[in-house]
Amino acid sequence: MSNVIKLKNPVSIKSSAAVCGNKEFHGPLRNYFDLHCEDDKFGKETWEKSESEMQRLALNLAITKAQIHPEDINCMFAGDLINQCTSSAFGLSDFNIPFFGLYGACSTIAEALILSSLLVSSNQANTVAAITSSHFCSAERQFRFPLEYGSQRTPTAQWTVTASGAFILSNESSEVPKIVEVLPGRMIDGGINDANNMGAAMTPAVYDTLNRYFQETQQSPENFDKIFTGDLGFEGHELLCELFEKDKVNLRAKHTDCGMIIFNREKQDTHAGGSGCGCGASVLAGFIMQEMKEKKMNNILFLATGALMSPTTVLQGENILGIAHLIHIQNL
Amino acid sequence: MSNVIKLKNPVSIKSSAAVCGNKEFHGPLRNYFDLHCEDDKFGKETWEKSESEMQRLALNLAITKAQIHPEDINCMFAGDLINQCTSSAFGLSDFNIPFFGLYGACSTIAEALILSSLLVSSNQANTVAAITSSHFCSAERQFRFPLEYGSQRTPTAQWTVTASGAFILSNESSEVPKIVEVLPGRMIDGGINDANNMGAAMTPAVYDTLNRYFQETQQSPENFDKIFTGDLGFEGHELLCELFEKDKVNLRAKHTDCGMIIFNREKQDTHAGGSGCGCGASVLAGFIMQEMKEKKMNNILFLATGALMSPTTVLQGENILGIAHLIHIQNL
Repeated sequence: MSNVIKLKNPVSIKSSAAVCGNKEFHGPLRNYFDLHCEDDKFGKETWEKSESEMQRLALNLAITKAQIHPEDINCMFAGDLINQCTSSAFGLSDFNIPFFGLYGACSTIAEALILSSLLVSSNQANTVAAITSSHFCSAERQFRFPLEYGSQRTPTAQWTVTASGAFILSNESSEVPKIVEVLPGRMIDGGINDANNMGAAMTPAVYDTLNRYFQETQQSPENFDKIFTGDLGFEGHELLCELFEKDKVNLRAKHTDCGMIIFNREKQDTHAGGSGCGCGASVLAGFIMQEMKEKKMNNILFLATGALMSPTTVLQGENILGIAHLIHIQNL
Repeated sequence: MSNVIKLKNPVSIKSSAAVCGNKEFHGPLRNYFDLHCEDDKFGKETWEKSESEMQRLALNLAITKAQIHPEDINCMFAGDLINQCTSSAFGLSDFNIPFFGLYGACSTIAEALILSSLLVSSNQANTVAAITSSHFCSAERQFRFPLEYGSQRTPTAQWTVTASGAFILSNESSEVPKIVEVLPGRMIDGGINDANNMGAAMTPAVYDTLNRYFQETQQSPENFDKIFTGDLGFEGHELLCELFEKDKVNLRAKHTDCGMIIFNREKQDTHAGGSGCGCGASVLAGFIMQEMKEKKMNNILFLATGALMSPTTVLQGENILGIAHLIHIQNL
């Protein structure tokens, strides 16, 4: 697994669903979300419970679209940014499905899809669900400042996306698109300790994973319709393209980042772009899946990128560790 | 996976290592730890860094015992109790091994061993590492009170164990013991919201998993040398035995709990027993593995139990969700 794993049996993404908040629904991808909530509360009295409710809704929608029942799902992989990953636990417990909790920061959706597809491809499970979420309000008060404080944001700061994405993977489906290859990431210390510059902190990890992928498979950006990361934002995108330019690899023509496309940079005041477990997950579940189903794209790489840190480790002077997990998705 | 999974190829536990703090080393299992530190600091200036260092040491020892190199390990699964699972990330990043971060509270070591053994059994990975830890001092100040406050503990409170356990699983080894079956747990709400009574909160989840195991496999406690949980403590042990007594199943003769055996109840003032990701992990890696290698036990069940909650969810009035993952280990 230091190497790219070509799945023995490519794994169908049988269905996906994306749920979002107000700001995301008023961004460029509004037509790709299945459900949104104007006040971001989803009928709950705390932001933490609102985030849980988004996960519950996203999985519910994905189950409905797949035309299956919760008891058909052998197990689920889920995680989020909140301490002790409680958004996932409290959002998903009622489904009564065997549960593997993950923590990969914003890389969680790719981590979940890698593990899900490995179990399905090897027929150790028939149907698996993968779900993640993030919520601007629960993340801000946990990682940065109380919302009421109204603090200034630095130019490289990213905006935590309020959204959840859910996927149903199955070996009893011939649906496209399919996950065909996976490559788990390593933890990379790029020497960044500015918690307001996650893009720069995670870029070396994306470079590590993507470079290993290109080397091993002898592929290059030209072989793909698009290479998505989630979420380096504008800052990380620029750094990543520069890193590859040094290797004489032109990533710029094919690369985009979920954090760059989920908000309108001019009108929505989100500085370096979107971030959070829910950003990459909802863009993949909504926009990317739809484009692939309509054959506008047929062959993509998706790398979800995580910043492994906490407010405590930043105060204790640790650098921010980056990690990037890769999945290769094709219309086969 | 709603069902018990019998591994196609039983998976060798090629090596294991257990590292602990002062109190654990002066408890009944002192001879089973590979390494301890008298001041619990492991040479570091913060408790969080000490916990990371325990994970690093535990994996290092397990790698040495297995006579392999870090680059032989295809991937690792790890997690801990600290916000954003930073003990694992900062403890393990230097090994440069592809990393899957988990959050399962105190069930994490069984979650890690289930996923590791599924990848190894299906030959999708040859060698996988599983590691978890907990540290009394980092956990107390995060979940309860500052250490300096010296708060009173309730009789049902458990004592977070300062320890780490690491395992190397391999399909290129004929070593015993082997993992032969696994059963992932579901999240169970037993209606408990007292964060000082984790044993009671997790017992319904153990009952759910163990009962499903017995029903499906037509096995009963008599078929095993021992059934270990980690960590219900004395309170949860009593409740669990009572639940099974109602079903006319005599669990009492075969059941023990890692949290009950790691400390001396009379002399060490740990109330309802030990707890924490490091409790079950270090007892399994040290004591249980040793007993199995010496053929004093040949056939056991190990269930690690997690309380899915955070200080925030408790304040917001949520119940504590329990989860219990099961692995069946045999000298084959």
